Amino acid sequence: MIRKKKKRGQLIVLSGPSGVGKSTVISELLSERSDIHFSVSFTTRQPRVGEADGVNYNFVSRETFEGMIAREELLEHAEYVGNYYGTSLKVIQEKLDAGIDVLLDIEVQGAAKVRAKCPEAVLIFIIPPSFEELSRRLHRRATDQEEVIQGRLQKAREEYRQIPNYDYMVVNDKVSEAAAEIIAILTAEGCRTRNRLHLVDDVSLGR
Amino acid sequence: MIRKKKKRGQLIVLSGPSGVGKSTVISELLSERSDIHFSVSFTTRQPRVGEADGVNYNFVSRETFEGMIAREELLEHAEYVGNYYGTSLKVIQEKLDAGIDVLLDIEVQGAAKVRAKCPEAVLIFIIPPSFEELSRRLHRRATDQEEVIQGRLQKAREEYRQIPNYDYMVVNDKVSEAAAEIIAILTAEGCRTRNRLHLVDDVSLGR
Repeated sequence: MIRKKKKRGQLIVLSGPSGVGKSTVISELLSERSDIHFSVSFTTRQPRVGEADGVNYNFVSRETFEGMIAREELLEHAEYVGNYYGTSLKVIQEKLDAGIDVLLDIEVQGAAKVRAKCPEAVLIFIIPPSFEELSRRLHRRATDQEEVIQGRLQKAREEYRQIPNYDYMVVNDKVSEAAAEIIAILTAEGCRTRNRLHLVDDVSLGR
Repeated sequence: MIRKKKKRGQLIVLSGPSGVGKSTVISELLSERSDIHFSVSFTTRQPRVGEADGVNYNFVSRETFEGMIAREELLEHAEYVGNYYGTSLKVIQEKLDAGIDVLLDIEVQGAAKVRAKCPEAVLIFIIPPSFEELSRRLHRRATDQEEVIQGRLQKAREEYRQIPNYDYMVVNDKVSEAAAEIIAILTAEGCRTRNRLHLVDDVSLGR
């Protein structure tokens, strides 16, 4: 006689320095857990080679983005290396209310804002096995000039200082293992007492 | 250049009402995670059929147990249905210091004492799919008289009130699934930021 109280979805925030391989980990995660809704962020930056509008990001103009800010349509937004990034509030709320877990890929400033608005959000920071490895990965990607890479490494150092604000850290050494750890975290969060008290039936409490 | 700072083991506390199938879940868990040290409790109660000294419990006399209390050799102890149950402090500390995870099977009073002494302990409460199912399992076990069974069910109701003190709830419907959830919880706890900050290398913090 389990009470069928409706369970809300979990809001999951993934952050990590540029070059850590977050997109690859997310792809692997979503292939294992296709029930998770990945929230596509809005940005004013230019698409990189291979990136598609509505898939990697919703690419919009600075004017459009500033309109969304003015109309308070964003859960969070931040400026990063000269471009805006932000998350639509409406879609997320609908999914969570329907019991669907929602995954956000956002940087540290945005994550802090989500934490402030949704204290129950699960914040996960992805780190590389070492900082040298992060540098190697950024150079291997070879889409950026050395100056830009150095800027990203400096930015990463600043982001690392925000790690204590995150609930969990996942090391992206092997992608499959990083994804497996995230899946374990989501399973564990689903077992948290506050998320399961509805499973205690009335009779056991003598009501 | 990951700093090899020594990681302490995790202290894991499992509780759950009599008849929920905790021992079976623990056997399954230990067969999957043989690196976990199961801390065998001390008790003054009589062994049940099939129970072995030093395996299920260390069975001791009331006099011996009271000597251990007097010498403060116990992490926690409690009286339950007229018998003492307790946990040796020394063995646990040695294992945790050596980086080994330690599993305790203790009832709610003992768990509250462990929480007070070790705030970082992970507390998991195992519940049956329903209270009717718990009653069925107790009757099926058929080692106890009806009066004893009713006493256990009443005790279970009281224990359920302590569930909010636990970090996690695991439903023992299928044993393999319950064990898998506990394994996911342990993986997730190992990913907690406070347990992984040693993975952030100095260079990333600009030291």
